[in-house]
Amino acid sequence: MSTDDLVSLRRDLHRRPEPAWREFYTTARLVDELESRLDGDLDELYVGPEAIAGDHRLAVPDDAELTHWLERARDAGADEAILERLEGGYTGAVAVLERGEGPTVGLRVDIDGLPREESDDSAHVPAAEGFRSEHEGAMHACGHDAHAAIGVGVLERIADSDDFSGTLKVFFQPAEEVVGGGKSMAESAHLTDVDRLLALHVGLDHPTGEVVAGIDGFLAVRHLEIEFSGESSHAGGHPEQGRNAVQAMATAVQNCYGIPRHNDGKTRVNAGVVEGGSAANIVPESARIVAEVRGETTELMEYMDRKARHVVRSAAEMHECEVSIDIGAEAPSATSDQDLVDIVADVASGTEGVTTVLERDELGGSEDATYLMQTVQENGGTACYVGIGTDHPGGHHSATFDVDEASIRHGVDVVSGAIERLATNRA
Amino acid sequence: MSTDDLVSLRRDLHRRPEPAWREFYTTARLVDELESRLDGDLDELYVGPEAIAGDHRLAVPDDAELTHWLERARDAGADEAILERLEGGYTGAVAVLERGEGPTVGLRVDIDGLPREESDDSAHVPAAEGFRSEHEGAMHACGHDAHAAIGVGVLERIADSDDFSGTLKVFFQPAEEVVGGGKSMAESAHLTDVDRLLALHVGLDHPTGEVVAGIDGFLAVRHLEIEFSGESSHAGGHPEQGRNAVQAMATAVQNCYGIPRHNDGKTRVNAGVVEGGSAANIVPESARIVAEVRGETTELMEYMDRKARHVVRSAAEMHECEVSIDIGAEAPSATSDQDLVDIVADVASGTEGVTTVLERDELGGSEDATYLMQTVQENGGTACYVGIGTDHPGGHHSATFDVDEASIRHGVDVVSGAIERLATNRA
Amino acid sequence: MSTDDLVSLRRDLHRRPEPAWREFYTTARLVDELESRLDGDLDELYVGPEAIAGDHRLAVPDDAELTHWLERARDAGADEAILERLEGGYTGAVAVLERGEGPTVGLRVDIDGLPREESDDSAHVPAAEGFRSEHEGAMHACGHDAHAAIGVGVLERIADSDDFSGTLKVFFQPAEEVVGGGKSMAESAHLTDVDRLLALHVGLDHPTGEVVAGIDGFLAVRHLEIEFSGESSHAGGHPEQGRNAVQAMATAVQNCYGIPRHNDGKTRVNAGVVEGGSAANIVPESARIVAEVRGETTELMEYMDRKARHVVRSAAEMHECEVSIDIGAEAPSATSDQDLVDIVADVASGTEGVTTVLERDELGGSEDATYLMQTVQENGGTACYVGIGTDHPGGHHSATFDVDEASIRHGVDVVSGAIERLATNRA
Amino acid sequence: MSTDDLVSLRRDLHRRPEPAWREFYTTARLVDELESRLDGDLDELYVGPEAIAGDHRLAVPDDAELTHWLERARDAGADEAILERLEGGYTGAVAVLERGEGPTVGLRVDIDGLPREESDDSAHVPAAEGFRSEHEGAMHACGHDAHAAIGVGVLERIADSDDFSGTLKVFFQPAEEVVGGGKSMAESAHLTDVDRLLALHVGLDHPTGEVVAGIDGFLAVRHLEIEFSGESSHAGGHPEQGRNAVQAMATAVQNCYGIPRHNDGKTRVNAGVVEGGSAANIVPESARIVAEVRGETTELMEYMDRKARHVVRSAAEMHECEVSIDIGAEAPSATSDQDLVDIVADVASGTEGVTTVLERDELGGSEDATYLMQTVQENGGTACYVGIGTDHPGGHHSATFDVDEASIRHGVDVVSGAIERLATNRA
Repeated sequence: MSTDDLVSLRRDLHRRPEPAWREFYTTARLVDELESRLDGDLDELYVGPEAIAGDHRLAVPDDAELTHWLERARDAGADEAILERLEGGYTGAVAVLERGEGPTVGLRVDIDGLPREESDDSAHVPAAEGFRSEHEGAMHACGHDAHAAIGVGVLERIADSDDFSGTLKVFFQPAEEVVGGGKSMAESAHLTDVDRLLALHVGLDHPTGEVVAGIDGFLAVRHLEIEFSGESSHAGGHPEQGRNAVQAMATAVQNCYGIPRHNDGKTRVNAGVVEGGSAANIVPESARIVAEVRGETTELMEYMDRKARHVVRSAAEMHECEVSIDIGAEAPSATSDQDLVDIVADVASGTEGVTTVLERDELGGSEDATYLMQTVQENGGTACYVGIGTDHPGGHHSATFDVDEASIRHGVDVVSGAIERLATNRA
Repeated sequence: MSTDDLVSLRRDLHRRPEPAWREFYTTARLVDELESRLDGDLDELYVGPEAIAGDHRLAVPDDAELTHWLERARDAGADEAILERLEGGYTGAVAVLERGEGPTVGLRVDIDGLPREESDDSAHVPAAEGFRSEHEGAMHACGHDAHAAIGVGVLERIADSDDFSGTLKVFFQPAEEVVGGGKSMAESAHLTDVDRLLALHVGLDHPTGEVVAGIDGFLAVRHLEIEFSGESSHAGGHPEQGRNAVQAMATAVQNCYGIPRHNDGKTRVNAGVVEGGSAANIVPESARIVAEVRGETTELMEYMDRKARHVVRSAAEMHECEVSIDIGAEAPSATSDQDLVDIVADVASGTEGVTTVLERDELGGSEDATYLMQTVQENGGTACYVGIGTDHPGGHHSATFDVDEASIRHGVDVVSGAIERLATNRA
Repeated sequence: MSTDDLVSLRRDLHRRPEPAWREFYTTARLVDELESRLDGDLDELYVGPEAIAGDHRLAVPDDAELTHWLERARDAGADEAILERLEGGYTGAVAVLERGEGPTVGLRVDIDGLPREESDDSAHVPAAEGFRSEHEGAMHACGHDAHAAIGVGVLERIADSDDFSGTLKVFFQPAEEVVGGGKSMAESAHLTDVDRLLALHVGLDHPTGEVVAGIDGFLAVRHLEIEFSGESSHAGGHPEQGRNAVQAMATAVQNCYGIPRHNDGKTRVNAGVVEGGSAANIVPESARIVAEVRGETTELMEYMDRKARHVVRSAAEMHECEVSIDIGAEAPSATSDQDLVDIVADVASGTEGVTTVLERDELGGSEDATYLMQTVQENGGTACYVGIGTDHPGGHHSATFDVDEASIRHGVDVVSGAIERLATNRA
Repeated sequence: MSTDDLVSLRRDLHRRPEPAWREFYTTARLVDELESRLDGDLDELYVGPEAIAGDHRLAVPDDAELTHWLERARDAGADEAILERLEGGYTGAVAVLERGEGPTVGLRVDIDGLPREESDDSAHVPAAEGFRSEHEGAMHACGHDAHAAIGVGVLERIADSDDFSGTLKVFFQPAEEVVGGGKSMAESAHLTDVDRLLALHVGLDHPTGEVVAGIDGFLAVRHLEIEFSGESSHAGGHPEQGRNAVQAMATAVQNCYGIPRHNDGKTRVNAGVVEGGSAANIVPESARIVAEVRGETTELMEYMDRKARHVVRSAAEMHECEVSIDIGAEAPSATSDQDLVDIVADVASGTEGVTTVLERDELGGSEDATYLMQTVQENGGTACYVGIGTDHPGGHHSATFDVDEASIRHGVDVVSGAIERLATNRA
């Protein structure tokens, strides 16, 4: 597969961004691509429910939403036989190459888009060159289209490699943007025999030509879906008969933001979405918060979670409301192992087009690749999260985000090179 | 028009409940009814934009919503020529009878339904007898269908009366439920020459056979539509870069409920609807509150309004957000004049089927008939709000609310009798 | 006793204002006055612990404070033998006249001053005429000095009366300003046989010459003493180790003020005194609130009490603090009985110097005379609270409050006259 | 001076702990000690107002408090002539040795005690051996008594040294515990020519025998003294007439704790002391907060300061109160310079009794030595904060804190050794 092919693939995916658990066209297209190009070489290709532990999916949208996007994929010409396997929001794939004796190396790439409008400014390359999103209200604004293309490119490169001896598994993971897919991939059987795991991300404020060998500083994160339930009453006639869910919510919001900082490291809390009540003249009987808590370590996230639940329950109690708290999504913290960082740094230094290699950098946000990294590390393996620089005109998640397609080849080169080193058949 | 006809009319309106400013079918049906039955007798019939001061409409829904309900009215067979006159949400009507020398007497009835589902329980008479709402999610749950029928009945009765000398105007007012229509009717030219004004309501926990000659205790009310606008940022990566509109909103909610009680009388505040934010991991850049303030007098309502605005603006400032505050709807307080209360009480005492007459009672809620009452009173006239008891199985605004149709005749009798007294041609 | 004597007595008490439970000089002076002037006539004179139910005293200050004021009384020349009987803050007195067959009539007057500085402006009569407070930081700013003088005057008048047949008890009650003394007087044995009870207050925005026959609108009141107890930690080093009592307190304050208004009548809440914490750099481990709740009825006060406790306990729980809630003081609501209102109004109409008689007026505040009124009413008797108008230059509790001493005679005349009517020996 | 002498000195100071700006006995005793022992050797000894820039003192207590402690010092036998120089709370001293050509080296030690009770448990060595605090309510609970002794010991050692060529200044700084003295010492003329500055602290959870060559992680800190001023009213009669300072305070507290965390590093906020209101039944007209803000850098502290002021001002505005915000005390952040860290580490490694040398550690709290460090660094010099381990049975600031007196000699040895290296006369 040439670089041009990978760019074409990336552009096709860019035109069809699909948010979390709705990657129907994306999965079908990737399966199609892998089957047509690597057919004889691939040893296994697990699709949808075979690729993930379905019970461990987090933050899955409702049926109406899933059906709507399945229709869109069908209309866009996705393979009907594959779509049928994905029904109900079981997306993603795992491709396996077995090449004799040697360690099992994993590569995780994520494939989902974001629920936001894409710019149609003529200075925005996808708009200018005709591959802007065709899905109104959705956009590949974080480069996962490039990630998927790199995953395909690495598979093809290793399939052709003379230096690789071992097993390669590429995890095309759904639903990263809602930290909802990592757990279901980590809990699948496919990860249990992985000895070395690489994950990657393009951009992150690093320009084309810069590679970060090991990214750390993932904040552990958990989303809490909080529902307050009180009792309505007429706000003019009988304010005293209500049990006001909005007062409970407001008290919870104020006090969640007031949870004490922790001396052991970064903590975060956010009441990202709130709503409540039905009419101006009705004492509100219901309210909800979609909140998130984070910590520099999983322990710190758990501290915030425990405090936030305490605040929420007491706020409900204060206003005589019931409350339920569900986990919407989550991901642990993780650290890149030095053995892999050293190899990636060394390979990157020798890669054409790579001009700067940073050994380490901090992410400062969250990523559910950490679920897979943690699982491998707990099994005695090592893991590393690699940054592939790419010039991006707009910031991540903005309407004018785009990647420099040259970085796709950098990604394939660096990652393939590292994989060959990890499972080399040379002396 | 017989009582049976009025019951048929009421049941037809019940089947077609239309919320505020969407009373397209209702207005068309009333116009049709008045024209066919009172044609030779009616001196004027003002419809839609001719009946109200369009610029003073409050809480008008958006165009999509209006169009949707106009379609529904069309599908239900409303007269196309009339519908055209109502387009854009100009609903309601004013019917005028001129019968020689004498005072101008007004009667105000409201005609809108509520945005709530109706019960389909077999114990619910409209369900059992086949006139349950055919508009999913809407219901005549406050008896305005009966009010409209009474208005038609009174017109017919006075048209046939030998005792009446003067002018009668019946105001079929839209949008009472959102306190949005009273002002536009009060500001129309039709009210300026009204000397005596009656308004009425069925039920209000008074059983069939009970009449309240003069209702007071209307709380002045104002709806505030509050929009906070801050700045989003990544809640994990840069919480310090956000200007958090949800924190502003929560602070405002907590402190609005904490506005001091007032020694001069009842005050109320409610944050009835709130929402804000876009995603768990984004510091919220926007939030809104639909609030209401009330007072036992208009001054007390203004006190609450002034305090609430102060709280809201300071909460926005505290979290470095902008804020806008718009008035959604409002109505003043009002008192029934004793001269009319005496007449109504006296007429009611002699009305067949009326077993109890209360001189006065308190409403305890709000009503925008007060706009019309206040205008007439400011012009030197007098006004009175009459309660017509009716057995109602469910409470007002509940899914099982219904009226005892016998009370329709009581309403026509009491109100017509009082009007004849107010403009009698007898010595 | 001439009017001049009563004025002298009032001025002496004015010079020696003593706050709640510290009325040592006041009690001693009153006992002395009664014994010297009414000696032969008085049947009983209960002093201090004999006058009240000591266990039911509320809001008693600590020993150091009591001792300090006892010393002051001693220095001011109070009778040592009487002072000894008052030790420990058992103040007040009950004087009894038994005059044959007939009902037992009670009169309650309060005797305590306020903890505030008195004006030394030359326009302030007590300053100009040399009877300004000699107790730094204390003042008779509510007229209780006049009340005490009226009580003495009434006793003397009835002792000399030919028209009275029955028993008169005058209750010189301590600690009204903290609503702390009423309960202990109501619970004493002295009140159990009272058939008719009068209480009185001067001023209340009524000018000299105006009498209110029956005052109502007493808000039931309760003081809550709330102590939060958490855990301190170093605010810089380990904020996460604290359990922050000030956060609990602030959350409680905000939400107590947000308790819903009640449709049945007036409600009140106030966090009148708060404090917490020990140093800027320590997470506060303790905090307290002295709050009060009120209601137009005792039920409404109980509603506020229940809600406030709920808020306080949940706020403590939210911040992982313990909390204790004690009742500091309280008084119920009460209503003046019509039979007594009629008599007082009639007597007042015929009293020299009284120019206006109002039948009823609202107090709008609280008063622990209601404890005595309620007890008498529960025993089948009737009670009435009388307002004696007096020009007062400053408002009640202000530094320039003063009474028009002419009203002392009005008080004696009206109350004595009513008492004679209630227990007359005439046909 | 023998080690025994230093232990005696430390014990005498321990018996006479004096809080910030009240170090009258302490200063007098140190001056006395230095004059008697180093008399011929000392070149300058600046005392009280000569030692500090008096206008830059922060958090000075009121006159009554100062006078009270001056009396205590007099009673304890302090030299009257010296006490006179300290009057008004100008405490501390600067001792100077001039020993020929060479750099000017500074050593800063702090000398104040804490306002807390000392344990009288027999397991507490000062209690068992008879040198427990004789000042009720005050205690040397942070080891500044040992610091002062080390300062004297270093002066004596360098005075006797053959290896030192240059100038040594020892700063005996008052008022560290309230971060109130550092600024006044940094702003004095004595610091302007210092090329190298050392500061030290014993303990900090490091055991006897452990030395930390360079301590970092000082949080910049600022104390804010906030006064809200509203308007009182009767909470029962006219709640609407008040402007409630306690509501403003509670809103400020809640929202200050809710200031967003900052991605650049540690931030802190604490409402350490609050109070407000005067009586349960009065709407509070005044309230205050003593708050502190901190940051890992001075910029982060300024971020917190700016946000906190914004919250406080808006909360006042919300409740129609005025507010004033004064700075009570403050200290910047600082970092130990590597050149000094290397020297200290090297000297410590060769010091008898020192078993472990850590190059760096974090303080995690605040210290106003940073003012002096920052001033020296801004002048082109370098500075270093040294930790001298000492077994301490209770934590810092606890009632059972004590030092292992062996560490006094370690402190003298390490610091003197480093000073000799910094200004050596050897090739």
